Amino acid sequence: MSAPLTDAQLTEAELAELDAHWRAANYLAVGQIYLMDNPLLREPLRPEHIKPRLLGHWGTSPGLNLVHTHLNRVIRDRDLDALCVWGPGHGGPAVLACSWLDGSYTDHYPSITRDEAGMARLFRQFSFPGGVPSHVAPETPGSIHEGGELGYALAHAYGAAFDNPDLVVACVVGDGEAETGPLAASWHSNKFLDPVHDGAVLPILHLNGYKIANPTVLSRLPERELDELLRGYGYTPIHVTGDEPAAVHRALAAAFDTALDAIAGARHAARVDGSTERPRWPMVVLRTPKGWTGPAEVDGLPVEGTWRAHQVPLDQVRENPEHLRQLEAWLRSYRPEELFDAEGRPVAAVLARIPSGARRLGANPHANGGLLRRDLPLRELERFAVPVDKPGATLHEPTRVLGDYLAQVMADTAQRRDFRLVGPDETASNRLQAVYAATGKAWQAEVLPVDEHLARDGRVMEVLSEHLCQGWLEGYLLTGRHGLFSCYEAFVHIVDSMVNQHIKWLRTTRTIPWRAPIASLNYLLTSHVWRQDHNGFSHQDPGFVDHVLNKSPEAVRVYFPPDANTLLSVAEHVLSSRDYVNVVVAGKQPCFDWLGLEEARAHCARGLGIWEWAGTERGEREPDVVLACAGDVPTQEVLAAAQLLRRELPELAVRVVNVVDLARLLPAEEHPHGLKDAEFDAVFTRDKPVIFGYHGYPWLIHRLAYRRAVHPQLHVRGYKESGTTTTPFDMVVRNDLDRYRLVMDVIDRVPGLAARAATVRQRMADVRTRHAAWIREHGTDLPEVADWSWTG
Amino acid sequence: MSAPLTDAQLTEAELAELDAHWRAANYLAVGQIYLMDNPLLREPLRPEHIKPRLLGHWGTSPGLNLVHTHLNRVIRDRDLDALCVWGPGHGGPAVLACSWLDGSYTDHYPSITRDEAGMARLFRQFSFPGGVPSHVAPETPGSIHEGGELGYALAHAYGAAFDNPDLVVACVVGDGEAETGPLAASWHSNKFLDPVHDGAVLPILHLNGYKIANPTVLSRLPERELDELLRGYGYTPIHVTGDEPAAVHRALAAAFDTALDAIAGARHAARVDGSTERPRWPMVVLRTPKGWTGPAEVDGLPVEGTWRAHQVPLDQVRENPEHLRQLEAWLRSYRPEELFDAEGRPVAAVLARIPSGARRLGANPHANGGLLRRDLPLRELERFAVPVDKPGATLHEPTRVLGDYLAQVMADTAQRRDFRLVGPDETASNRLQAVYAATGKAWQAEVLPVDEHLARDGRVMEVLSEHLCQGWLEGYLLTGRHGLFSCYEAFVHIVDSMVNQHIKWLRTTRTIPWRAPIASLNYLLTSHVWRQDHNGFSHQDPGFVDHVLNKSPEAVRVYFPPDANTLLSVAEHVLSSRDYVNVVVAGKQPCFDWLGLEEARAHCARGLGIWEWAGTERGEREPDVVLACAGDVPTQEVLAAAQLLRRELPELAVRVVNVVDLARLLPAEEHPHGLKDAEFDAVFTRDKPVIFGYHGYPWLIHRLAYRRAVHPQLHVRGYKESGTTTTPFDMVVRNDLDRYRLVMDVIDRVPGLAARAATVRQRMADVRTRHAAWIREHGTDLPEVADWSWTG
Repeated sequence: MSAPLTDAQLTEAELAELDAHWRAANYLAVGQIYLMDNPLLREPLRPEHIKPRLLGHWGTSPGLNLVHTHLNRVIRDRDLDALCVWGPGHGGPAVLACSWLDGSYTDHYPSITRDEAGMARLFRQFSFPGGVPSHVAPETPGSIHEGGELGYALAHAYGAAFDNPDLVVACVVGDGEAETGPLAASWHSNKFLDPVHDGAVLPILHLNGYKIANPTVLSRLPERELDELLRGYGYTPIHVTGDEPAAVHRALAAAFDTALDAIAGARHAARVDGSTERPRWPMVVLRTPKGWTGPAEVDGLPVEGTWRAHQVPLDQVRENPEHLRQLEAWLRSYRPEELFDAEGRPVAAVLARIPSGARRLGANPHANGGLLRRDLPLRELERFAVPVDKPGATLHEPTRVLGDYLAQVMADTAQRRDFRLVGPDETASNRLQAVYAATGKAWQAEVLPVDEHLARDGRVMEVLSEHLCQGWLEGYLLTGRHGLFSCYEAFVHIVDSMVNQHIKWLRTTRTIPWRAPIASLNYLLTSHVWRQDHNGFSHQDPGFVDHVLNKSPEAVRVYFPPDANTLLSVAEHVLSSRDYVNVVVAGKQPCFDWLGLEEARAHCARGLGIWEWAGTERGEREPDVVLACAGDVPTQEVLAAAQLLRRELPELAVRVVNVVDLARLLPAEEHPHGLKDAEFDAVFTRDKPVIFGYHGYPWLIHRLAYRRAVHPQLHVRGYKESGTTTTPFDMVVRNDLDRYRLVMDVIDRVPGLAARAATVRQRMADVRTRHAAWIREHGTDLPEVADWSWTG
Repeated sequence: MSAPLTDAQLTEAELAELDAHWRAANYLAVGQIYLMDNPLLREPLRPEHIKPRLLGHWGTSPGLNLVHTHLNRVIRDRDLDALCVWGPGHGGPAVLACSWLDGSYTDHYPSITRDEAGMARLFRQFSFPGGVPSHVAPETPGSIHEGGELGYALAHAYGAAFDNPDLVVACVVGDGEAETGPLAASWHSNKFLDPVHDGAVLPILHLNGYKIANPTVLSRLPERELDELLRGYGYTPIHVTGDEPAAVHRALAAAFDTALDAIAGARHAARVDGSTERPRWPMVVLRTPKGWTGPAEVDGLPVEGTWRAHQVPLDQVRENPEHLRQLEAWLRSYRPEELFDAEGRPVAAVLARIPSGARRLGANPHANGGLLRRDLPLRELERFAVPVDKPGATLHEPTRVLGDYLAQVMADTAQRRDFRLVGPDETASNRLQAVYAATGKAWQAEVLPVDEHLARDGRVMEVLSEHLCQGWLEGYLLTGRHGLFSCYEAFVHIVDSMVNQHIKWLRTTRTIPWRAPIASLNYLLTSHVWRQDHNGFSHQDPGFVDHVLNKSPEAVRVYFPPDANTLLSVAEHVLSSRDYVNVVVAGKQPCFDWLGLEEARAHCARGLGIWEWAGTERGEREPDVVLACAGDVPTQEVLAAAQLLRRELPELAVRVVNVVDLARLLPAEEHPHGLKDAEFDAVFTRDKPVIFGYHGYPWLIHRLAYRRAVHPQLHVRGYKESGTTTTPFDMVVRNDLDRYRLVMDVIDRVPGLAARAATVRQRMADVRTRHAAWIREHGTDLPEVADWSWTG
């Protein structure tokens, strides 16, 4: 069933060198898990040489080491520009071992020298307090992929390959990870990879048979069924199976040669011969025992080749002399005396097949993408801004205005090819379709005459998988490029867990001097909670903002531009920024234009501000009430409420505050964008009623502002899970965020109002009653609401 | 490539009847999207007959109607007990139409009669304010699957089929949905379905070619590649392709007959012949045009068979006479006069192939699972509780104690088979392995001699996909059974979006009288943030609680049992409850036993309480300070702090409060479990310093308690994203939740302390410094911490 193998023609010397490297890496992996001292076994192993806490994952490590050994060979022989994404990244000991062997570890951490002293430090620091994590992590040279949560390895690999035409991204997919949904979807990424402009991904499905406690699904399929599955995913699998090292070395070397020849062939066909057929890219299926070369049996139970090898096969080494004996025998089985010289340096045979310089997997600059990142060419916003003579006189769809700007970015990166727009089938639905004038939608599958905007070399990526969008974009950014993810607001929760991991990555890299900053991960959340005409309750969830604001504040920014020009200004900012996750929430429906470009820029730079033109403050005294808003729909309702108050209760001094940058509400000591108390109080007062119309869950505003002096006076309206398929205005009424309710809130909270305020309040309540009757009858909004516009 | 088709031998009469039903359903679907009046076209269509807002999804509707028509046939002919999960549930008009036709709609909503008046109401209410959602929703008879977020149809179908041996669950998978990760993983559910004890799932992959704006990946694969993919997933695909109705009717009828014969054959082989080979279950690949039978062209652009048919093909019907004319022609193309009689009732031919009574898809009780749900047999907790003579004298692993209890539930449901435990490969890692004494792990793939606890009929489900765990369990609960999902705390965020949808479902069903309550969805979150010895930062995220507490409070409960007996008490409660999502957070590591069973029960019933034995209050006066805690690790640190204070500052009156039920902190008007202010103040005081040690993100406690009188005095310690692979105590120190820091917090906040408090504070700070040095040197916790226990 396998593709015919190229004869790798490994000489005995090569084989010995590859095996020496593999044994050295395995030795170093075991040493990291167990040893505090006596790293080269110069004396018999004693309990005090053993770490007090035995932590780490052995099971996958020999497989990762094997792949690393053989990638070294082909990179060196072919002068490949290659990365590897280590899906089973809990095998940190393996990747650290190989990085130490190729010298890249010492390049990044000079104290971990490539000798006995450095080896001792390498061992001790592993999974030790103050040391390095047990998984592949941002601290690991050569890595773009956190070895924690499983599912994203292959999507990251494809993201790294897009627009890197000379790169080969190997990707080890564990058979555990292969059971996850995101990974299962990722195989189809090959329908989006252009053999002309993109690099290649070489998946290596590593079947070691077991997860923590169970067999894996793919390892227990008949090989024929597995082969059909992988061919159905569009690959040509090359199967390598074995538990005898020399035979596996030969087979894997041949498999890698076959695969790389096939990649070269596909590139040639597409780039030279002009073939437009989608290549059936090669992949390797590597079937070796879990915990291979480790203890076969412990305490009478089989370990090697079973789930019991997953973490620490011998777990009583300090206390149990038999375990200690087994560990020593295990370590000596690699014959360290042949692998390391008197000073503990790897001998020449171990290093013989390792590539040099930036070709080393631990040193390839693509894995430290900030080194390659160039600022995006961003044109002046004046060309895209909408003219605003007076607030609220015109309407624009903010995301459509943004679309023109993004189209220009696409056009200006046509040669550089370092900007992509990703989204789940919604670019046009979200009104960003202007980008198609500059580039198409990536598509390598069949194209029919009726199709529009599909292009083999397109840089808009649409697939109905938020996981793929996120994974691709992460891989793209981590290798030094730029992008934007546009998504339905409710369904971005699908990637909650992925963004967690990305924020943790960014937060950690900020503490690693050699990690160069990468472009921010930018979300445009649109089709938001307040406008779901075709959909309804299932499409209404504004909680992603709450989710990301739980994470490290140094890496998270949230913006609610209230109109088209503020959206442009925010977009310019986030596309220029580095090492953040930026969440921008903006509507796609026609929205009043409140600010001209210059005002928008100033407003966004401040992050929040008083809109004096919208309020009724006079002179020096503080206002009677503050009407605050964040989000496009709340801004409209707050302004409409302010207008009602101006008409109905003109003596009331109303201040209108708009918030773009939500973190401004946090205390300065909690978030870099947080306002100092004095600044906050100057805007919101210390003791006046504040009625806050917020786009999302109202308690988020309380959570951000609870330390402020005015907090006992803060009353927030927002989404409270009351929704269905209905009109825009009915949505705000159902959630008590409508203008009439806001006026009632003001009247309820401002002390000492004129007696006629009660009449005004009743009139407001009456309109809400009228609304309820009207909508039941007509299915549309009250004319006075539908036709409303700002008159000041 | 297809399996040989059984000759369905459709007579011309049958064919005519099936086609009549399909045409009627299509007519009703179009009517719902467009018509406010004139439902039977008794007069020429005029603009005022048209809805003012045209909303809904036409594209998928004819395909869903076709499947429904043909399911009716086989259900009736074979007296099948069958459900259908409608993956493309945005095709609400189709499912509503078919439910109206089979009479189940009128059964549930008597005002929507099966005549002209009822048809008019059916049309008007669709996607109309105050009417019904545009998607398949809880309001839709026969549905267990919200038609909003895509990806979960097939997992729901499998969940419904488990332990329902006579049920056939058809499942329409849209080719858009098929691109999602969760759906891609779901195909492998067949490795977990026991042909003896479980029902069958019949996937119907509907390739209509397009999403909102793009072709779909699967529809553009060569048929051979798609066929390999589906065979690789373990199915035998039956391909039906066409755009000529009669031919498609014949082919689909034959395909369904073939598939159902194959299902019957597989059941017979497993149940009668004793075959243990995993069946290659049949599935249908149905390839028909998107928006089939709708307008071929609109405004000169192709619509039928393209993405333009996705929502409302003619969108200017009120304004554009040509659109109006096209709509009328479209509606009349179904020949309504042949389908409905003078009173608007469906004629006999339309109804001829519809099954009757509970066999109708809109009436099957499995789709209203609460009707079938029976209380779980739960034994008295006394058999499982740990003895507690005095607090803190013994240690138990709480989840291991729970495991014994769950094992009993498994044993006691061995015949009923209505309880399952799901989890991503972590049942034993989470210390619940006692359940294996009562049942095995479901597994239909190859079994090797070395394997443990695998069983074809097992009711523990382990797969490395949180999406599958969640989807299976949802389907299982929605069809009237019980279960528990045990998950690593950090990675439950993977299903954030799924739980959103499930909570929305539960919240909505609470307002639907005919929906009987179902068993709650119970999470056990363990391997939590404070103990990640093998893992570290990537495995640390306690934010799922924040996420669910954003949702409808009537459907959400969160529990932090602090020890083994409280965990038992909480487990008993959640397993008895209905219509909730219960989140239980509990550690798997040895934990002090604080409460005996009776105390635990009383404490859990109150939800929070003063632990008098732990504090130093005397007599009537209020305490000087309140030390509160929620979560096992914070409880330990708070008690250790209380012990330090008792020793160091014995004159200080310290109150210790433990919180199990987090919603107790909310105001009574915000959550059914919320305490009234007077009750809250009686526990927490109105003005004394409250130092709160919380398991998760500290601001959540502020978000819950900001309205309380004592809030300005509330100081919360919790996880603040400071973590790595390190010791348990180092984790609490890094996050300022350790006992020494808590004592310092008390000293910093209680006014008027004796002068020697400053010395005590310095001693606490010194221990923290000593900790830092010790852990760098030894990699273990300070002996005084490692050996600590409560002495009062």
